[in-house]
Amino acid sequence: MQNPTAAMLVIGDEILSGRTRDANMHHLANELTAVGIDLKEVRVVSDDPNAITGSVRELSDRYDNVFTSGGIGPTHDDITADCVAKAFGAHIDIRNDARELLQAHYDRNGQELNEARLRMARIPDGALLIDNPVSTAPGFTIKNVHVMAGVPKVFTAMVASVLATLTTGQPLLSRSLHVIRGEGDIAGPLGVFAEKFGDLSVGSYPFQKDGVYGANLVLRGQDAVRLDAAMTELTAIFEE
Amino acid sequence: MQNPTAAMLVIGDEILSGRTRDANMHHLANELTAVGIDLKEVRVVSDDPNAITGSVRELSDRYDNVFTSGGIGPTHDDITADCVAKAFGAHIDIRNDARELLQAHYDRNGQELNEARLRMARIPDGALLIDNPVSTAPGFTIKNVHVMAGVPKVFTAMVASVLATLTTGQPLLSRSLHVIRGEGDIAGPLGVFAEKFGDLSVGSYPFQKDGVYGANLVLRGQDAVRLDAAMTELTAIFEE
Repeated sequence: MQNPTAAMLVIGDEILSGRTRDANMHHLANELTAVGIDLKEVRVVSDDPNAITGSVRELSDRYDNVFTSGGIGPTHDDITADCVAKAFGAHIDIRNDARELLQAHYDRNGQELNEARLRMARIPDGALLIDNPVSTAPGFTIKNVHVMAGVPKVFTAMVASVLATLTTGQPLLSRSLHVIRGEGDIAGPLGVFAEKFGDLSVGSYPFQKDGVYGANLVLRGQDAVRLDAAMTELTAIFEE
Repeated sequence: MQNPTAAMLVIGDEILSGRTRDANMHHLANELTAVGIDLKEVRVVSDDPNAITGSVRELSDRYDNVFTSGGIGPTHDDITADCVAKAFGAHIDIRNDARELLQAHYDRNGQELNEARLRMARIPDGALLIDNPVSTAPGFTIKNVHVMAGVPKVFTAMVASVLATLTTGQPLLSRSLHVIRGEGDIAGPLGVFAEKFGDLSVGSYPFQKDGVYGANLVLRGQDAVRLDAAMTELTAIFEE
């Protein structure tokens, strides 16, 4: 059985300008790995309608799930919901279920549900709302695309809501070996090892720290027994 | 004059599995912003030949510059150079200029230039070498694609080498205002402001910290005088 696949679409000029360092990609990558959904691609695009719409269509066609991050707040630069609706030719407007959630939230806080905040109730027809336990304004799922907020705390909460509803796979397990030798010395025997264990993913991630060259060798697979056997052999090859 | 555009392609299963948090995207974004090259898109793909080759072609067609990160070391999973060559139908093999650099480096260090290390001398015909002052093994530029190492220290050095050779633009300047009010309160007047200053980019980046809602309002443009004028007006609108 192949695991389900996924892509992530990060929407935000602030990431591309270097102003903000994205945190959501790393979080989502870890969560998906843990439940056996294979994250195959991430794209970061600017707050540009064509870039968003085009990427949503492409990624939705290519992968089982698409997770978007960013651009669903109340300000003029929050255009994700409208772009995703457009990507699927879906009608979008203020929806009563989302409006009621917001109305109750702002009533509780003694704030006005003004025109700007009402923008956050714009949900495409047919979409399912994604719960936002942090600040109420919902995300939504349309087809295989999960539209979520960019604020890390809200994104994290929405990912948890969505993952509970998805078909998951066999978690990818990993074992790693820290080797203090340059990759050039490791590469020959590692290549032979990788061929022998062709059913596992064998990665070498070099580092250089304080003038010392080394690599983390990482084995990945779904079968713990097989991984442990491979790890024993890998350790024997590279033990000093 | 439009600024030149750029995309980045990060190659690495270790990012998509969540094992490693990418650092190169944030660095490149800042460097490009500083020299007036507009980073329009970032993609992260796995160590899969079709994914790499396809993305290189697409991004090379679409943007003025493409920067890749990762997959040019000596191990079996380092396939970027061959994939980039394939994307352009270029012949690739061990090239003498790269081999000589490596030979001198390993001679100096009393190490053997073995078969694995020689893989790092695989450079497509017609490509220009990118200097690697950290660990010698070069990157390369073919057409508008700059192929660089994933190890952050090496990536950073290579970016500096490449940027010195590129056509740059007008640096994008920014001013930002920290406002301790929820985006829903800001959005109305901010939208009016953004329309008035349609020649600037006006972004609102919400945060939520210790239960306090606020937003960083960021103005971006190429003209410092215009930015300062806009900033004065923005501050007047949102001062308490």
